[in-house]
Amino acid sequence: MLIVMKKDATRDDVNRVRDHVIALGYQPHEIPGSQRVCIGITGNNGKLNPEAFALLHGVDDAIPVSKPYKLVGRDAKPENSEINVEGEVIGGREIAIIAGPCSVESWEQLISTAEVVKDAGAKFLRGGAFKPRTSPYAFQGMKEEGLVLLREAKARTGLKIVTEAKDVLTLSSVSEVADVIQIGARNMHNFGLLEAVGELRKPVLLKRGISATIEELLMAAEYILARGNYDVILCERGIRTFEPYTRNTLDLNAIPVVKKLSHLPIIVDPSHGIGMWDGVASMALAGVAAGADGVMIEVHPEPASALSDGFQSLKPERFRDLVEKIKQLAPIVDRALSLEVA
Amino acid sequence: MLIVMKKDATRDDVNRVRDHVIALGYQPHEIPGSQRVCIGITGNNGKLNPEAFALLHGVDDAIPVSKPYKLVGRDAKPENSEINVEGEVIGGREIAIIAGPCSVESWEQLISTAEVVKDAGAKFLRGGAFKPRTSPYAFQGMKEEGLVLLREAKARTGLKIVTEAKDVLTLSSVSEVADVIQIGARNMHNFGLLEAVGELRKPVLLKRGISATIEELLMAAEYILARGNYDVILCERGIRTFEPYTRNTLDLNAIPVVKKLSHLPIIVDPSHGIGMWDGVASMALAGVAAGADGVMIEVHPEPASALSDGFQSLKPERFRDLVEKIKQLAPIVDRALSLEVA
Amino acid sequence: MLIVMKKDATRDDVNRVRDHVIALGYQPHEIPGSQRVCIGITGNNGKLNPEAFALLHGVDDAIPVSKPYKLVGRDAKPENSEINVEGEVIGGREIAIIAGPCSVESWEQLISTAEVVKDAGAKFLRGGAFKPRTSPYAFQGMKEEGLVLLREAKARTGLKIVTEAKDVLTLSSVSEVADVIQIGARNMHNFGLLEAVGELRKPVLLKRGISATIEELLMAAEYILARGNYDVILCERGIRTFEPYTRNTLDLNAIPVVKKLSHLPIIVDPSHGIGMWDGVASMALAGVAAGADGVMIEVHPEPASALSDGFQSLKPERFRDLVEKIKQLAPIVDRALSLEVA
Amino acid sequence: MLIVMKKDATRDDVNRVRDHVIALGYQPHEIPGSQRVCIGITGNNGKLNPEAFALLHGVDDAIPVSKPYKLVGRDAKPENSEINVEGEVIGGREIAIIAGPCSVESWEQLISTAEVVKDAGAKFLRGGAFKPRTSPYAFQGMKEEGLVLLREAKARTGLKIVTEAKDVLTLSSVSEVADVIQIGARNMHNFGLLEAVGELRKPVLLKRGISATIEELLMAAEYILARGNYDVILCERGIRTFEPYTRNTLDLNAIPVVKKLSHLPIIVDPSHGIGMWDGVASMALAGVAAGADGVMIEVHPEPASALSDGFQSLKPERFRDLVEKIKQLAPIVDRALSLEVA
Repeated sequence: MLIVMKKDATRDDVNRVRDHVIALGYQPHEIPGSQRVCIGITGNNGKLNPEAFALLHGVDDAIPVSKPYKLVGRDAKPENSEINVEGEVIGGREIAIIAGPCSVESWEQLISTAEVVKDAGAKFLRGGAFKPRTSPYAFQGMKEEGLVLLREAKARTGLKIVTEAKDVLTLSSVSEVADVIQIGARNMHNFGLLEAVGELRKPVLLKRGISATIEELLMAAEYILARGNYDVILCERGIRTFEPYTRNTLDLNAIPVVKKLSHLPIIVDPSHGIGMWDGVASMALAGVAAGADGVMIEVHPEPASALSDGFQSLKPERFRDLVEKIKQLAPIVDRALSLEVA
Repeated sequence: MLIVMKKDATRDDVNRVRDHVIALGYQPHEIPGSQRVCIGITGNNGKLNPEAFALLHGVDDAIPVSKPYKLVGRDAKPENSEINVEGEVIGGREIAIIAGPCSVESWEQLISTAEVVKDAGAKFLRGGAFKPRTSPYAFQGMKEEGLVLLREAKARTGLKIVTEAKDVLTLSSVSEVADVIQIGARNMHNFGLLEAVGELRKPVLLKRGISATIEELLMAAEYILARGNYDVILCERGIRTFEPYTRNTLDLNAIPVVKKLSHLPIIVDPSHGIGMWDGVASMALAGVAAGADGVMIEVHPEPASALSDGFQSLKPERFRDLVEKIKQLAPIVDRALSLEVA
Repeated sequence: MLIVMKKDATRDDVNRVRDHVIALGYQPHEIPGSQRVCIGITGNNGKLNPEAFALLHGVDDAIPVSKPYKLVGRDAKPENSEINVEGEVIGGREIAIIAGPCSVESWEQLISTAEVVKDAGAKFLRGGAFKPRTSPYAFQGMKEEGLVLLREAKARTGLKIVTEAKDVLTLSSVSEVADVIQIGARNMHNFGLLEAVGELRKPVLLKRGISATIEELLMAAEYILARGNYDVILCERGIRTFEPYTRNTLDLNAIPVVKKLSHLPIIVDPSHGIGMWDGVASMALAGVAAGADGVMIEVHPEPASALSDGFQSLKPERFRDLVEKIKQLAPIVDRALSLEVA
Repeated sequence: MLIVMKKDATRDDVNRVRDHVIALGYQPHEIPGSQRVCIGITGNNGKLNPEAFALLHGVDDAIPVSKPYKLVGRDAKPENSEINVEGEVIGGREIAIIAGPCSVESWEQLISTAEVVKDAGAKFLRGGAFKPRTSPYAFQGMKEEGLVLLREAKARTGLKIVTEAKDVLTLSSVSEVADVIQIGARNMHNFGLLEAVGELRKPVLLKRGISATIEELLMAAEYILARGNYDVILCERGIRTFEPYTRNTLDLNAIPVVKKLSHLPIIVDPSHGIGMWDGVASMALAGVAAGADGVMIEVHPEPASALSDGFQSLKPERFRDLVEKIKQLAPIVDRALSLEVA
């Protein structure tokens, strides 16, 4: 913390701040400037609350210097975290391909999509059973029945299941089926849910809130790690900006920034990010080029009849093309995509 | 819904859209233009999903015409809703003054603040027992113990209690003490919590999410009304913009817009909105001038030692001045503030 | 400037930064912390460029401490600036009322509006002769002919003229007619134009760009003051946010912030700010309540036939009501509005 | 245009709108719905002004259907535009590499950078002689002297020159040296400057304003094409969002959107976009993967001593690596990068 005194602060003002710092158990370091005095604070372990100083008489500003997170930062763990999801690793050399429908709608829809995405090279099947929706009148998912279908799809295909837990009440049933528990963008600040998945020992896919800063995303992950669950995969899925043409603004800048600040893997969700199917492949490739550890893509056999997000879903053949391109792109950014024989 | 065909759409494309509309049970109305054909859809009850049409061949755009909400709109109820909180009405002629500390910190802090705000003219005491915090290492509130103190403060002063329910698990205990259950900005899209308070028969103060559009705020209220709880008070508390100087950007434009679209009352929270104590009074007055039904103000006897949000809290004497000014301002906007003898 | 060293910075890294500071002619102040070293810099006169330090080896961050502006800040001039516009003062006790059509469209339209706004209490007539428009196919104003009409309207009514200079080429002809030269939001960063009005000795109304921070607005004003023209009036006219319902988001938070940081007067333009006529009066009142020195209102005798911005223009009788309310409100915020007999 | 009537609109209201449409020379098409009447308008050539209808009695909303631009849209020209810059084509199969220092600072700095970037594969040299700066006290460029150096660098290396015209006054001298005239983000809405470059017959690089929508960027290009200059290259260089960590948010979503809507080429400027050198290469690769026609990169032999934007400049060896990766990536997105022997 750096305390910047006002130009007209008196010696008494400065002394009062010094005493306050000492009273809190820290050391004040006075920096006498030509225009104003600054006071550096040391001895604190982590970020101090600037408000406690900003209100003292004669103080102009209180500027934090330390970062507010601990466990998720590169200071705590310099090397990349690799998350093992039943044998498939996210955050290593291999690009993770997660694909499937927005919502589980029926057995036929789910299994046909699952087979298509597996055939194209995905190792993970996504699909929502519980769907948070802006309107109370919109389709809210097949719920428990959807989970049953996901379990069967996994048994049939061997794909790992990524599905969303939308609240604490349904977390345990979701957790029984999910190999990766997804926390949606609207729940990034649902601290009770973060704490609950922090108690589990199962990988969590944490989506960035649409107006969350990168630091807030890292702090939300910190909630989970602080409870002992270190298997967190971050996900950039588009932020809210002034631009009306795209559903959201997929913020690929977050990829190199997260890679710099944190050891956690980060994937991108271009389907929600740009929200129009004819931009998804471009943004998925761009995400991998930017350094993402994986992509999550909505695929639907018949997008026009999807119960949710049809407009942003890829048809199977387009998805297949995309995976092929990602495979070619991966080595350029020192990654790989190993497509096994389906 | 209006379907806009592409300029090069064929007669077959148009017919296919017409057939699709008819198959869904609605009526298509073809509008032959010089450049392109449009097709209006009627017979639907509420908003259609544009995606179901946007993917049909030859379609350029699908534009929703109906509003997505029903119960919260002026169409459903033209006159203003007045919410009765144990005898105190919010949304009527009287401006509601809600004040108190950000967090309940101790009996002394709470009761001294309660007496001060009552004395100045507040009818409602705010104070958080459960505090959602961005950092897992920050003070999370006194929890159950805080609720006990709020109950005692109510018994002592007669002030109605406004306090936050941060999740479904603690809702029932909060509900026992609260006269108005606050849903915080980070929970505006916590649909499970919205549904749970929708089942109660107790007034709810619903804060706008920091990146929620006005329509999304109304849709969140719709979740509560759809479950039968009509006593919802909206709260503008600042949105996130590019401006770094203020904590948030209190969006007073939302006041006249909500008043136009909805019958629900709306109050403003300038303390979180601007986030700096020396701007709170200005923004509170501005909120009342813009037509707000009340204000919620953070007051703390010693802001510099507050455990949260001290920088945006008013000292008692400044709060007293503010209430006096609101009283003078109210009649200019056809409202009133009746200060009883304390 | 505070230089924050990395945790693993070496003694050599620290010394290199110290040497660099000294080489630039400033003094380094080393603050040895338990986790990392910080180095405060003093001896500089104004803001340093953080980039010059951020790239040095071992440096984690370089945090500016000084404010980048000089002349517009309260440090340079603690008391409010009052701008004299041919006898009418903006920035004093009196609230300035500036009103008129968006564009000058004809003599009949201009003079009828001018008489109406004068009659209601305005001292300033606004009206655009040169109109910057997003589309090259939209009405671009009456140009020189519009200036002639403005001059005649001033001669007839005595109202002071506020009109926009949209580029350097037409500045001299605008300047001959205008009593206050308006710089539009899209030109806030047109530095050539700022420098040109800085050379004049005539009041300038500088509108905040739709995505300009408050600091950037002050820096744009600094361009004008730095050339010797101290008569600058700032204008908040709405910023661009994610909210689609309103044309812009009138940011009233900027009023108390500007009042805190700068001695320059600031007015609000609620017509562009909210962009819908049925919200203009509420936001104008709110602006005055927040501490604005004046309001600028679009008034049109027949909004439905206006060539630009009809949807946000007030009819004369609504404008008259608004001025009456501002008059009542002014004393509550220690201001006044003196309506002379028309 | 679609006119949506209010639910309680009368037959007279509807007739009045119909008459108004006919009076304007268009055809009304009434769509009788169960809840409300809508009226489609045909016969117009281009976008109508919604305001002219929104104010009529009984009208709830007026929704534009046509796009506001003509010449820049795919409707006007379905195939991609290829811009010939003295033999080098932008917008064809070849990825354009534009590189150089932010500002021209000296002959040694310019020529050493020019040789480095040419050697690495760039065909275009960027470098600012006239620099728009937020602060009046910052380095404003070498101006005319900088242009002389750029001319000499071109003579020496054969690189095409991309340099900014910051106002109409200096346009002719810039135009004499520039092979591509850059219009900066702050000038995207400087309509006088857009018109002036529209009169020239020389390629223009038009940067997106930091808060400009994609449609506004296209409308700004429309200003140039409408004056007869069809050689416009668009440039995404980062938008302003709430995220504080990066200087701007490079919006790569704009690439597939512009490619869908317009025939004009679009390049990306990751240096300004993300604003931190250690993210530039990732974002440049991502831009090419997203479909950009080229990249513009700031390169400086000694970033730490640059007079502007040093923090976002690449060192020569990093730039060389980046170009090599772009060359490998290009064929995956059906592009090429032909590196000649230097």
